[in-house]
Order: sequence, then C-alpha cells, then structure tokens
Amino acid sequence: MRDVSIIGVGQTEVAEHWDRSLRDLAVEAIASARKDAGIDRVDALFVGNMLSGELAGQENVATLVADAAGLVPIEALKIEAACASGGAALRAAYLAVASGAHDYVLAVGVEKMTDFLTDGVTTALALAADADYEAAHGLSFAALNAILMRRYMHEHRARHEDFAPFSVNAHRNAALNPLAMYRQPITVEDFMRSPIVADPINILDSAGIGDGAAALLVCPATEARRARRPPVRISGSACATDTLALAGRADPLVWQAVADSARLACAQAKVKPQDIDLFELHDAFTIVSVLSLEACGFADRGSALKLAAEGRIGLEGDIPICTFGGLKGRGHPVGASGAYQLVETALQLRGEAGPAQVKGAAIGMAQSVGGSGSVAITHILQV
Amino acid sequence: MRDVSIIGVGQTEVAEHWDRSLRDLAVEAIASARKDAGIDRVDALFVGNMLSGELAGQENVATLVADAAGLVPIEALKIEAACASGGAALRAAYLAVASGAHDYVLAVGVEKMTDFLTDGVTTALALAADADYEAAHGLSFAALNAILMRRYMHEHRARHEDFAPFSVNAHRNAALNPLAMYRQPITVEDFMRSPIVADPINILDSAGIGDGAAALLVCPATEARRARRPPVRISGSACATDTLALAGRADPLVWQAVADSARLACAQAKVKPQDIDLFELHDAFTIVSVLSLEACGFADRGSALKLAAEGRIGLEGDIPICTFGGLKGRGHPVGASGAYQLVETALQLRGEAGPAQVKGAAIGMAQSVGGSGSVAITHILQV
Repeated sequence: MRDVSIIGVGQTEVAEHWDRSLRDLAVEAIASARKDAGIDRVDALFVGNMLSGELAGQENVATLVADAAGLVPIEALKIEAACASGGAALRAAYLAVASGAHDYVLAVGVEKMTDFLTDGVTTALALAADADYEAAHGLSFAALNAILMRRYMHEHRARHEDFAPFSVNAHRNAALNPLAMYRQPITVEDFMRSPIVADPINILDSAGIGDGAAALLVCPATEARRARRPPVRISGSACATDTLALAGRADPLVWQAVADSARLACAQAKVKPQDIDLFELHDAFTIVSVLSLEACGFADRGSALKLAAEGRIGLEGDIPICTFGGLKGRGHPVGASGAYQLVETALQLRGEAGPAQVKGAAIGMAQSVGGSGSVAITHILQV
Repeated sequence: MRDVSIIGVGQTEVAEHWDRSLRDLAVEAIASARKDAGIDRVDALFVGNMLSGELAGQENVATLVADAAGLVPIEALKIEAACASGGAALRAAYLAVASGAHDYVLAVGVEKMTDFLTDGVTTALALAADADYEAAHGLSFAALNAILMRRYMHEHRARHEDFAPFSVNAHRNAALNPLAMYRQPITVEDFMRSPIVADPINILDSAGIGDGAAALLVCPATEARRARRPPVRISGSACATDTLALAGRADPLVWQAVADSARLACAQAKVKPQDIDLFELHDAFTIVSVLSLEACGFADRGSALKLAAEGRIGLEGDIPICTFGGLKGRGHPVGASGAYQLVETALQLRGEAGPAQVKGAAIGMAQSVGGSGSVAITHILQV
C-alpha cells in the first residue's frame, strides 16, 4: 500500500451563489487546487455530492464535473455517504492512489443548495435518515438531532446554554475566514435568544446550508515533493458504519461509527487523541460536536460540554475544533463540507491558516459524519 | 498493486418486485454471494445505485444496505455513475482490495424502480443526461438514443430491421435464464411490429426497467483458493469519461469513453478483442450494442449490424453478447445492471452458465455505460 499525500487544495467561498451552478463551483475549486499544487497532471476524479439528483435533476455528477473542468477522458466517479460525501471522496481518491491504479487524483466535494426552497432542502436532507422508519414519519434531520440533544441534556443534567460555547467558538473562528458564510461573532446571549428549530435545537445550534466546492489533489508520497507547496501526508484513513435508524442502537448517545472510524484512522497513523493538534469535526448541530468529541476519546462520556466551557476547543486550547468556523460558521454545503474540513486541516498543517492558525499544528484529524452518526469517515493528516 | 479475484456471486430475479424493498433485494443478493463463496468475512461494502434518492427518498444507501445485511460496522460507500453504477461498485471494491486497505470486499448493485409511475422513472433516468443542456429541453433517454440511431441509419444506410438481431439474440438468451424478466423469445416480425417509443426506437429496441440486486465478493488473488467455487480473476479494470452532453462531441457515433475504458482494461489484462470469449455489453438500446461493439474493436465502424446479421453475437458465435439476456432480456434495474453483467460473466467463466454456457469461455469482458456514452467502466475477467 503506497503512502499518499495531499499536494494541492482549493475552495470556493461558501455562500448563496445565486448566479453560479454546481459546475461553476466545482471548476473553480479544481482550478484552485491544481494551481496550488503547480502540477497539471490528473489521472482520476472522485466527486463527493449528496443532493444534486434531488435538487438539480442531475445524477452522473462526476462526469459532469470532469467534463466542465476539461478533464475528460479520465476516470470519474461520484461517491455518496450523505453529509459525509466530501470525506468519502478523499477516501476513494486515497484508495485509488494507494492501490497504484492512479498517481494524481482529485477529490472534490460540491453541493448547490440555494436554488431551492427551504422546504425542499429540509425534505432532501432527510434522505440521509431511514426513509422507511424515520423520514416517512416526519422526522427531519433537526428533529433527529433534537431527540439526541434532549436525551443528552436529560442524562447529563445539562442546560441548553451549556451548548453555546460550540456555536460561539465556530462563529469566532469563522470571522477569521474570508470564505466563510457566517462571519459575524456571536455571544452566549445571542445563542440563547435564537429561535427554536426543533426543541431544544435552535438556529444557532444548527449549521446553515450553503453552496460551495472544495478540492484536494493527492499523489504518492514519494512524488509529493514535486509540488509547489509543502505536502501533507494522509497517515490514516477509515470509514465505519452504524445502524441507519437511531432506533436500532442500544445507546443513541454512543456514536459507534464515529468512534470506530477515529480508532481505525488513529491506529493506522499510530497516533493517540492526545497527539492531535486540531480536530475538524462535523458540527452540523452542537450536539454532534459533543457526541463526536466523546466518541473519539477527546472527552469522557458526559464531559464534552465542560471541555468547551473551559475554552479548550478554541484556537489556543488543547483541542481546537472548527478552526475555520466549522460547518456552523463556514456554512454547510452538505456533500462538500467533508472536503472543506480536509482542505482546512491541510492549510493548518502547512502553516497557512492566517489569523486562524493553530500554533505548531503537526497532526490534524478531519471527520465527516453522514446521517445521525450512521456513517463516519476520519482522516489523519500530518506534516 | 495486488491481484484481485471474484470468489462469490449472487443475484436476485429481475422482476417487478411489488412486495419487496431495495433492502430486501440487496440482502438476498449479498447472502447469496457470501454463501456461494463459502466465506463469512466481509471488510467493506461498495453499493452501486443510481435512483434511490429520487425514487424512494433514500440516500445514504450504502449504510442502509450494510445495516440491513448485518454488516455494520464495516466501511460502506455508495458509488454512482448513472447506469454504470453497478460496474463502478466493482471498480471501487477492486481498488480497495488492490490497495491493501481491505481483503474481503462486497460490490453490490441494486435498484428498485417499479413502485413508481413510468413518467417518474422516465424523468429520473434523464438525470443521467445533462440537466441544463439536454433534459431541461425535454430530451428523455430514449430520445437521446433515437438521435444516435437515426444518425447511424443515415450514415450507414441501415434499415430499422437491421437492428432486430440484437433484440432477438437477447430474448433468445433470456429464455435460458430463470432470473430474467423477459423470457419469451421474439422474432424479427415481432420486433418490426413493436410500437415506437422515440422514432426510430421501438419498445423491442429498449431494455425495460425492473427491480433487482446482484453482488460480488472479491479478495486478493492469493487468498482466492479458500473459496468454495473456482475464483475468477479481475485482470483488467478501467473507467473513462466523455462529454456529458451529446452536443459536445466531434462525432456522436464514436463512443470514446467506451473505447478508452475497453482499451485500458485490455491493456492491463494483456488481451486483445479477438482473445475475448464473451462480451456482456450495455444494451440499454440496440444502438448502444452497435456503438459499443464498434468502439471496442469487435467490428469496424458501420459494420456491427453485419456482425449481428451473420449470427456472430449468438452463444455459438465468435463474440457472444448478452449471454443471459443482456439488459434487454434480463431487464434493466439501472444501478444494478452492471453488477448483473459481472455476475453473469463470472458464471460463464466458471462454466456454470447452464444452457446459456459459452463453450470454453476463459476470458470475458463486462462493460457498463452511463449516460449517452458519457462514462464507461470495463472489466476483463479470466479463469
């Protein structure tokens, strides 16, 4: 199995791109990643996307992107793992290079959501849940996470405002990221005044959707020094699943797929949670950050809120998360978010995170979660 | 790069399974493939599916299938390449094993189409075309292929009835396959009397949709002798793309992605078209069979109709195609068809094709095409 490195990264602004199509966004991110690497060659393309079929009437999205980016006749396949699709695209690119089948491979996450009414998007996002046993009964994604959050608050005697530091942290970091969608810092008071979406989840618990694309060019580690910028090694890559429906789990507050994928990726990279300098986690809702930190071993069960309250998740903390704003602050173009997380982790390790830089960052973890923790993809990146 | 072998295959009947869900079909195919191999271990799952999001309100399909089949917590990802999704799933499984990341990997193609009105399916199938430049203008998939067929008839002075042998051959072979949807043999007269769908394409030019699932278990070639049945080696695997819209091509009758993927797969396997004993091609429409045979080097440009007229595509011919009925006779559950083609090729090479057996079959080619030739995945299998 060949070692694989990230040699180029690119990303578009996350925004309501009313005047730009999925094609335009993917092409910009790809051009930017190729320019960043300073290498022209691309042998294959893996596209992470969740909702283009439902929202834009377009499947065959990988071919679309290959065509629009002038990459025909290379191999191009779409990978879907709900909101984890962007991370899954890098996973596929990683396997293609590790196998020896290809040398220079692009992973792109792209999603175009704002041409559609909010109702349509809420329905579309519920496609990541169990259609027969959850969505058909009216459970939206916010509702599923609200169940988890209420249960967590009950079990650990937590108050809603205890979740505020996650949102405050995300917005504080997003203010440092010119590509983020929600750049205004917020206070705990703002959080508490925010309207309820699905009790107890409010708007500031929830990552807003957006349009965007992010791309990574990978190649064998042995060839990575050819690139213009310092290469970032993928030292761990893993995917794991859990039951699709929450009802299938013995304990819904144990996110086993998240735990398994992190454990496998760390074992491959030979690192422990305490070695990790930053963690781009999948903060679709504040409760997801909490459950992910606990599942991955950064906090004991029931203690992730304390981690946040003590400021340890900030850029100067011992486990910085959402350093460019996370899904909450950057915005959450669902199939693209995983690719953004990986681009941001790579930039941190290259020391190019600007005012959001985590000092001395050498080992980063990026994790994408699909469904209500039903699939998780974790990558460990190192310089 | 490790050599990879197919050690187990399974498939459900292709039919209108009104009483069975996508879950049920996938689980049956997987159980059958695992039983066929006589090996319990599964490390990862790649699911080929095109339309579950649009037709069943279900994305995150790989997690669904892993969960339903009792395979949680293994890695599970969905691969989409329009109608080539089934072939793409094996491609992903192949890369995962070749890389060394996993040893025992399932590739499953599954599609559930008949719970929905025909209008819905026609619209859904058009998602494989270019949404902005083709589908938005009312071009259905039959319409796109009708344009190609009319152009072919014009350029090569062909008559509609010249295409009949492809449909007659598919139905003759399907009659030998108990899992096929359309088992009744047809005559040239039946073909000519068949109602027009999109001039000049008629119903018997067109593969009917259906429900079904097919699965393949693969592992490193070095471990394949552990299996109960003779292993089948994947000696070539390749994917290539062309422009998404027909209008983007210099010559729409040259299917470059089909040609490229076949050339790459043959080069990897070190075989030539004349070495190949059977060719499971993507006969979604008779014109697709014609263009595929010409693109892959089995017939010169304009001469594939002659190949069929001379009976050379039959089970006793020099290049048997659609030996179990093809998409036309077996039925075409779109995201599953590629997996069926691979299962059938493997059965031929194992000498287990029953009355459809191609004598002495040692090298087989299976090819899935997505869109109007915009993406193609070709595998060479050998015993």
